[in-house]
Amino acid sequence: MRALALGATGTARVVGNIVSASTVTLALDAMGGDHAPGIVVKGVALAHVRYPHTRFLLFGDEAKLKPLLAADATAAKCCTIIHTTETVSPEAKPSQALRGGKQTSMWKAIEAVKNGEASGVVSAGNTGALMAMSKLIMRPLPGIDRPAIISIIPTRKGETAMLDLGANVQCDARNLVEFAIMGECFVRAMLGIERPTVGLLNIGSEDLKGTDTLREAAARLRDATLDMEFHGFVEGDDITKGTVDVVVTDGFTGNVALKTAEGTAKLYTEFLRNAVKTSWIAQFGMLFAKPVIMQVMARTDPRRYNGALFLGVNGVTVKSHGGTDAVGFANAVGVAVDMVERDVNKQIAEQLARMTLVEETRVTAVASE
Amino acid sequence: MRALALGATGTARVVGNIVSASTVTLALDAMGGDHAPGIVVKGVALAHVRYPHTRFLLFGDEAKLKPLLAADATAAKCCTIIHTTETVSPEAKPSQALRGGKQTSMWKAIEAVKNGEASGVVSAGNTGALMAMSKLIMRPLPGIDRPAIISIIPTRKGETAMLDLGANVQCDARNLVEFAIMGECFVRAMLGIERPTVGLLNIGSEDLKGTDTLREAAARLRDATLDMEFHGFVEGDDITKGTVDVVVTDGFTGNVALKTAEGTAKLYTEFLRNAVKTSWIAQFGMLFAKPVIMQVMARTDPRRYNGALFLGVNGVTVKSHGGTDAVGFANAVGVAVDMVERDVNKQIAEQLARMTLVEETRVTAVASE
Repeated sequence: MRALALGATGTARVVGNIVSASTVTLALDAMGGDHAPGIVVKGVALAHVRYPHTRFLLFGDEAKLKPLLAADATAAKCCTIIHTTETVSPEAKPSQALRGGKQTSMWKAIEAVKNGEASGVVSAGNTGALMAMSKLIMRPLPGIDRPAIISIIPTRKGETAMLDLGANVQCDARNLVEFAIMGECFVRAMLGIERPTVGLLNIGSEDLKGTDTLREAAARLRDATLDMEFHGFVEGDDITKGTVDVVVTDGFTGNVALKTAEGTAKLYTEFLRNAVKTSWIAQFGMLFAKPVIMQVMARTDPRRYNGALFLGVNGVTVKSHGGTDAVGFANAVGVAVDMVERDVNKQIAEQLARMTLVEETRVTAVASE
Repeated sequence: MRALALGATGTARVVGNIVSASTVTLALDAMGGDHAPGIVVKGVALAHVRYPHTRFLLFGDEAKLKPLLAADATAAKCCTIIHTTETVSPEAKPSQALRGGKQTSMWKAIEAVKNGEASGVVSAGNTGALMAMSKLIMRPLPGIDRPAIISIIPTRKGETAMLDLGANVQCDARNLVEFAIMGECFVRAMLGIERPTVGLLNIGSEDLKGTDTLREAAARLRDATLDMEFHGFVEGDDITKGTVDVVVTDGFTGNVALKTAEGTAKLYTEFLRNAVKTSWIAQFGMLFAKPVIMQVMARTDPRRYNGALFLGVNGVTVKSHGGTDAVGFANAVGVAVDMVERDVNKQIAEQLARMTLVEETRVTAVASE
């Protein structure tokens, strides 16, 4: 994903007071995540080298941020500190965060997007709070009932986007169609695939498999008015097989699938590491094999895939892993830059008009039966 | 799992006409699976060497089976052919298989268990048909509403059992409690863990996460009357972490999680193989590292984990992967032998009495509120 991002060109954009041919201003929750604010400042510096046209509003404790910027010339020249007094606790429930969180670095950062001072927000903080605040402050895109979490996953063929990864525990057919549209626009813009194929995650590829909700969603996605490359149902092993460009599922299943894949990846790397430790001959061999094994590790490096999007809100919200380092945070910033520059939200809005047509047709069809 | 199985001791048992201190007779659907009946006969021979006290009823086409037995002395001495004229197609829907399947090798094999001629059935054929026929012919265990598919998965700590893996797309709280009880008894008997820990698969470990169904199931599983080592909610990455001994989930989520894990495992092995191919230095190193890498592969060999159980029916039904080879089929036979010898069904029946107590207590509590 990052590789594609390097080829991105900036678009003319008015962001708050800043008018430029290509400047992108992002609001950062500098206090969110296990290693904040240190990795945020370091991550910003890395991202700025990669995207020199970026500027950052750092929302957080001035007393902590000032010395960090003083020690980092790159970060200092692209960052403005906006002092905030409170932080969202990693344990806070979304409802708690909404009630008492108006003075937090996370709230203020999201508000900056709402007010047009920044084009997107990046946070490594509390996921539930970030989604709830983004939805409340930015509001969903017109026509979107349920914003969803999307991320990119490495596959045997390349990369696949999957959503929803946990925002919506239960979904109806309409929600799944919304996810499909959002995912399609996301992949077209971010991975550069003109007509992305879309699959609905199920427990079999036959038409009769799964729940009524899935069959109804499949019927809508097949509708010619939607003009989507709908592949049909896909199964769990199709995710990493790269069978489709977009895997659509409810937030419960998506979250379990993503974490199961992460867990399995860890299982393999740990088995391999421990096995090699048991044999000095293997260790000798590994001296030669290591470079290619490091390539595999790099290809599936979680930091490379850091930056899940909360798609479907009227703005850009990127969630970095809470435990990430500066490299990972810089990648999450990169995702936000791409989202802003490629104006994914505008494409989603256009495509949603087609979904409304499909729904109207289906209502008419049912009425005339 | 197999390692433990080797330590198993036979128990006195009356099976059909055969009375022996330890003989176990299994009915085999010799026509099920991609490579049947060849791998079935070869698999039986392998299994018989490992479990010399086994006898097999081979249900299938006599014309195909006779020459195979004639060429394999080991299989010949422990197998009896029972000629059947039809086979369940891999594409048949469960309802089709039930309607027109009474003359199939699968139906006849299951019927042999029902009639007491065999203690369990093994098939590499159509999964849906095998479950539907087992449920119809053997009937669920008294007190079990929904039989479920269970299998053992390698983890960073050892092995974990997960259910349901696809039999029940939608489940209520009571079903999940049944699964927990069946899984606990299965792990106690098959993995020799006295008090297995049980976790409910969810998208967060906090008590408030997930659906109402999951929260209700968790409340029941926490009930002291059940006397279960209930760990609470677990997430997708906890499966391969080995956080609990039994992972309980609905058949939709379980199926997606299992296939996602299998897909991710393939992704890693393929990335690694392809990466090594690109470099002769790495290939040289791999000559030395290969033995330990083969160990890792052996530890996660799908054939080793072949043999999913359809748990909760009044009998033993083992499903082998359709594409397995003789080694995999022999392992599936081993699972059936263990299930019969360790009398898991009897333990489930005893434990179910506790669940009924929990339900009565809960009804009384609600009535008196």
